[in-house]
Amino acid sequence: MRFSVIVHVMPRMGILDPQGKATEAGLHQLGFDRIEKVRIGKQIQFELEAESEQEATEKTEGACKKLLANLIMESYTFEIQALPKG
Amino acid sequence: MRFSVIVHVMPRMGILDPQGKATEAGLHQLGFDRIEKVRIGKQIQFELEAESEQEATEKTEGACKKLLANLIMESYTFEIQALPKG
Repeated sequence: MRFSVIVHVMPRMGILDPQGKATEAGLHQLGFDRIEKVRIGKQIQFELEAESEQEATEKTEGACKKLLANLIMESYTFEIQALPKG
Repeated sequence: MRFSVIVHVMPRMGILDPQGKATEAGLHQLGFDRIEKVRIGKQIQFELEAESEQEATEKTEGACKKLLANLIMESYTFEIQALPKG
């Protein structure tokens, strides 16, 4: 079975997010002064071949822990969807 | 009213995504060889003060077009949710 996966990786609460701070300053300079608490993370999309949704979930967990997220500074969530055959 | 916004910015289909390619190669080296079509974008979260959900949507559209996304190379989607008062 083929699965479409979207992983969301965000800086953990309490961890400084300089990219978010810089973006917030930029937004304020452009007049978007009512935007606050900007935080920036990554969104990773991929396709995955697996025997079952459980295997796809395990593979995705593994990929997140080993490469996609830095668990000291980041947390992740993901969504898995089976793709139609063909 | 206060809103929580999540913006997803992804490289457009057909645009090269070197970060995605490098990540895919890294995953394959780690044994995740059934992961394909890796593409990497940004996820931007913020809070926004607005009179209505329509105003929040307009402000978010403006922020995406003016700063958060490069429309030549990237496309964006977003979700807006009203936050409880207090």
